[in-house]
Amino acid sequence: MGIQVAVPETSSRVLSQEEFSARLESIGEERYHHRHPFHLLMHEGRLTPGQLQAWALNRYYYQSRVPMKDAIILSRSDDLEFRRAWRKRLLDQDGREGAGGLECWLKLAEATGLGRERVTSCAELLPGVRYAVDAYLALVERGTLLEAVASSLTELFATRLIAVRLDSLRRHYAWLSNALGYFEARLSQAPEDAQFAFNWVYQHARTRDEQELAVRALTRKCDLLWAQLDALYFAYVEPGWPPPGAFRREQD
Amino acid sequence: MGIQVAVPETSSRVLSQEEFSARLESIGEERYHHRHPFHLLMHEGRLTPGQLQAWALNRYYYQSRVPMKDAIILSRSDDLEFRRAWRKRLLDQDGREGAGGLECWLKLAEATGLGRERVTSCAELLPGVRYAVDAYLALVERGTLLEAVASSLTELFATRLIAVRLDSLRRHYAWLSNALGYFEARLSQAPEDAQFAFNWVYQHARTRDEQELAVRALTRKCDLLWAQLDALYFAYVEPGWPPPGAFRREQD
Repeated sequence: MGIQVAVPETSSRVLSQEEFSARLESIGEERYHHRHPFHLLMHEGRLTPGQLQAWALNRYYYQSRVPMKDAIILSRSDDLEFRRAWRKRLLDQDGREGAGGLECWLKLAEATGLGRERVTSCAELLPGVRYAVDAYLALVERGTLLEAVASSLTELFATRLIAVRLDSLRRHYAWLSNALGYFEARLSQAPEDAQFAFNWVYQHARTRDEQELAVRALTRKCDLLWAQLDALYFAYVEPGWPPPGAFRREQD
Repeated sequence: MGIQVAVPETSSRVLSQEEFSARLESIGEERYHHRHPFHLLMHEGRLTPGQLQAWALNRYYYQSRVPMKDAIILSRSDDLEFRRAWRKRLLDQDGREGAGGLECWLKLAEATGLGRERVTSCAELLPGVRYAVDAYLALVERGTLLEAVASSLTELFATRLIAVRLDSLRRHYAWLSNALGYFEARLSQAPEDAQFAFNWVYQHARTRDEQELAVRALTRKCDLLWAQLDALYFAYVEPGWPPPGAFRREQD
């Protein structure tokens, strides 16, 4: 991040591409969930097997809504070229001929020791996770298309996090090593997706107000990723009381 | 159509697959736009070149909304297998490597003598066409998923209409003969799509009330296809006054 970040937020000057990029990066640096204590525990190998199950089970709900979110975005664009580019995400997550991201996530959840039905039923979700994910769909459905696309820009920060995570999962949780296909695929998918979305947002945010709208959408997306981990941390790490009906650890 | 159609509408008995199919067929026979006077004129070669332009230009709006409609349906399903099947429509219309249905429709509009921008701008649409198409998106967005899927069942009747149309367009409007790729592709796509949708609707309409809901959704879809042709007929065939700003024929 360079000196460009120092553009005052109150200025109405349109940010250059470099300044806009630096602005988004600074949001990620401060707010992306790579900093969340739950992830820090994971990366240090300090989550128990049961806590990993809770994470895989709850985050499945997020994964299951990603293709629906992308279909909402598709449904809002009357630009054929945009749709042709964006639908890649749908294919990545739902799979082409073989398994996609969603199926890979299920494999990961199964590798933590959970049954498939138990995960896909979403019966034991934390309400806080559900609300945060549903808020994502609402943002994408009710915000402007610019906000919807900008909310995907957390992918700008995903690759670094996933590289760290792959390394620590392999090191600390060896029984998951053969079930990390989701993250391996995201290592190449996320940068491509992020690049397209960044270019589109930069082109379509033509005023400073629109640029700020995009920045706020990214901020809200960071918030809702963070809130999912808050719910997990509170219920399963400390002090540790999942609400009635939510997943309870049987192993640790 | 067999004797099965005679199931009284007031009965609460769930229709067998054969009865349900016959019920849908009877809706198509009565209400599908193959019977509309505008189409009858077209198939008899009695539409003027300008009237064909008006048709191609207005129906482009319908075509342009089809992938958005399908993305809405995708966004409403949390069933991976359903999404994987349904997304085929998105790929068909937006194109895979090459041109899809939407681009083929533009080629047809260009073959009628219209400039591409004039068509894609949708600036000269008949309001009645716009309202009918927008009502389709509203049905798919606000009805149940069953109604949304059932509204696609006009594809059950499409193949026969398209076969007739291809034949008459080639015979009566020879200058369009090299621009009929849209219809040629639909000859194989529509039956596949219709079969999938019919099976899904039959499986998911588990009560007679739900079956009737599906029948009504199909009826509404027939209505909105019909209404588009009403608007065209009124503005361009007889008595012939397109509203201010709408496409005006320059050739005939």
